[in-house]
This record gives sequence, C-alpha cells and structure tokens, in this order.
Amino acid sequence: MPEPKQVVVLVSGGMDSVTALHWAVEQHQVAAAVSFDYGAKHNSCELPLAAAHAARLGVPHICLPLHFINDHFESALLLKGGAIPRGHYEAESMKQTVVPFRNGIMLAVAAGLAESRGAASLVIAAHAGDHAIYPDCRESFMLAMAAAIREGTYAGIELLRPFIAMDKASIVREGQRLGVPFKNTWSCYVGGSVHCGLCGTCVERREAFIQAGVTDPTIYGSNSPLPAAPTA
Amino acid sequence: MPEPKQVVVLVSGGMDSVTALHWAVEQHQVAAAVSFDYGAKHNSCELPLAAAHAARLGVPHICLPLHFINDHFESALLLKGGAIPRGHYEAESMKQTVVPFRNGIMLAVAAGLAESRGAASLVIAAHAGDHAIYPDCRESFMLAMAAAIREGTYAGIELLRPFIAMDKASIVREGQRLGVPFKNTWSCYVGGSVHCGLCGTCVERREAFIQAGVTDPTIYGSNSPLPAAPTA
Repeated sequence: MPEPKQVVVLVSGGMDSVTALHWAVEQHQVAAAVSFDYGAKHNSCELPLAAAHAARLGVPHICLPLHFINDHFESALLLKGGAIPRGHYEAESMKQTVVPFRNGIMLAVAAGLAESRGAASLVIAAHAGDHAIYPDCRESFMLAMAAAIREGTYAGIELLRPFIAMDKASIVREGQRLGVPFKNTWSCYVGGSVHCGLCGTCVERREAFIQAGVTDPTIYGSNSPLPAAPTA
Repeated sequence: MPEPKQVVVLVSGGMDSVTALHWAVEQHQVAAAVSFDYGAKHNSCELPLAAAHAARLGVPHICLPLHFINDHFESALLLKGGAIPRGHYEAESMKQTVVPFRNGIMLAVAAGLAESRGAASLVIAAHAGDHAIYPDCRESFMLAMAAAIREGTYAGIELLRPFIAMDKASIVREGQRLGVPFKNTWSCYVGGSVHCGLCGTCVERREAFIQAGVTDPTIYGSNSPLPAAPTA
C-alpha cells in the first residue's frame, strides 16, 4: 500500500469532488479542501455543501474568491452570463457554459496553496467522462498542467487523478462504498432551490445514478424523460 | 515579417514587462495589458505605473485582484510577510521572496482572460537572467505551462517570450530603442517612496544599466557599492 501523502483536494461541492474528498480522507492526510467562488450561478448552492462535507470529515476548508472571473470573463455559467442551455451535456450548446481555462486557474491557485502548506500532492476529481468540449478537461491539457505544477514548485507537487479511469457511474459506486451522502452534493448549473433536472449537468447526474444502479436521492424540479445522447 | 496577433501582455510595472508592453505595441495588436494585485509590498508602487504606461500607449489596462495570495500564501514579498532580505538576487536568502507558483497563477488567469477577449497569444517578459531559485521561472516550467495553455484553450493560445534569449542588460538596450521611460518603472521589492538600492531586485536593476552602458534614471535610497555575485 502506498505511503499516505499530505494532499490538497479541489472540492466544488459536486458529486465527483465530494467523493474525491472522501477518497482522500481514506487514502491520505488532507491538508486542506479548497473551493473557489468565481461568480458561477450555482456557487451559492455548492460552496456551503463543500464546507459542510469538510467540517463533517474534520478537514480544513478554504474558499478562495476568484471574483475577477465573473467581472472579466465570458460564460453562460457566470452570474452575469445568459441562460444555461437545456439538454444533453455533450451537445454543442453546452459550449456556452465553458469558463475559459477554469481548470488551469483552479489548479494553479491550488498548487500555490499546496506549496504554501507543505503538501506533496493535489487531488482533482477529473474522470473518464469529462467532456472534450471543455479544452481544459482534455488529457493533453491535464498532462501538461501536471508537468507545469511539478516543475514550477520546490516540492515537485504531484497531480493525483484517482478517478481518471472511471466514468461517472463508477464514481457513484465508489461514493457509495465510501459512504458519501450524495443528497448533499450539488450538480445543477442553473442554481435554484432544487436541481432543475434539465440542464446538461442534471442530465448527466440522473444518468449516472441509473447506470450505477444506485437510488438517486436528488430532488429534481423536472423528472421528464432523459434526452438521448447526440450521435458522434 | 510575421503577421501581427491580438495579444494580452502581462505587465507588472517593472522594467522588463514595461519594455515587453512597448515591444508588443510595436509588433502586435494589444488586446489588453493585465496586472495583478496580489498583496505584495511593492504592488502599490508598481501597479499605478503599469496603468500609466498602458494609458500613454492607448492600450486597455486590466488590474485583477488576487488578494487570496496575501491572505493564504507564505512569502516575505507579501504585505503580511517578514522583511525583504538585502544582497545579491542569486543569494539563497532571496528564496524567502518566492511567492509559490506565482507565474503559474498569473499565466493561467491571463490565459482565461485572453480566451475571453479573443486574443491569440500571451506575452510575458521572461528572460535569460531569470533565477533558478524560482521554480516557476525554470525553462521546464515555462514549456509545460505553455503547452497547458495551448491545449487548454479553444484558441490554442500561444505563450510568447520575446526576451527569453536576452539578459537584463539587453532588455535595457531594447527598451532604449523602443523609447521606454525607465524612470517610470518599479523594481524594488521593499516598496518605499524610492528604490532602496539594496534588495536583490534593486541590485539587479543597477547592474543591468551599468552592463548596458545606459544612464540609470532611477533614484535609489542607497548607492552603496554593489555586492559581488555569489560564486556557484
């Protein structure tokens, strides 16, 4: 069994990253769970959940404000942006929800924090189902960013992606094994009082529970039939 | 002659980046000059100069707050940190002034801004004299970060380092050619009303003008003899 490491975990409050936090608590020593408030419509839904999971697990939680993103960047995901499109996540329209270089920014900031805290590694819940419409989810991006973080820090900080070979349904099963209270995780990009059930992230969440054969504890505003995935 | 590009230039208000801004105005179309207020002791000296150069050159200037760095990171460079060490820049003591992964964070944020503004390239004033004590100045870091930015953006944003083969004295000569008013640039890490003349960045600045054979217009608090560079 590998030696436990001091790790910093990126936790948005979504089902993947909350599962990654539980995994990190099981496998390593968690120096901090870090979240980012960047002015997304759903930040106010997900960030309190991230804080609550960290508190329950006895892990320090740090929420860093990146307000310049909403002030200066363009994306429908942001408070100042247009409406979130409905339909399957892979659809072309979901490109409107891309926040330019978001993963690059979050990983860079988390790397600086990890170096400041003496951590050896970062944990991100990147997975095999991450979407090619997001350039900063591509494998070529992740490998280059991992090299930049390793080369650009004294500690040679390592990027851990424990779920990179899993799809989202496998993460649901891993979360069930780890006792993740999925009810207290947030996916919906629209960001209301309950999950809308219709946006790309809600569709993906619903599909993941069905494919995993795990009861979905989420309350959705709409349980209308799931759209078919677009053909390639 | 290569086609002009829409570029975003990282400008701190120091002599290298202000020269890079003049170079970019000559060679390309500057979509924005971007500065970062991260709570360094000398931010209040350098940032108004960055804004003034952009205004004089007719370039939009954007100053992005990264206050989380002073709030959560460790470095003598920060307002909350200890005293700035004196002596030659290459000395071991200057490691105290490293802000963890600062170049990674600034490049990542600038990449997101460039993608939002439709720019094709980023310009950074990295040069051959950049110090190996700073992991995020190493060539291996820069190459990996450039790949991450290219792979992680729709536009395949390119990282331009026009001064990478130059030392700081060569940048002084290039700045003289471009008409850079060096008097209105700021290097000193201590951040008083005039350059201290004694910290690592002041020593380096004084050496660069002497080596370039260009009159140094800077007012220094101390003009005491320059320390010898440490032997390897």
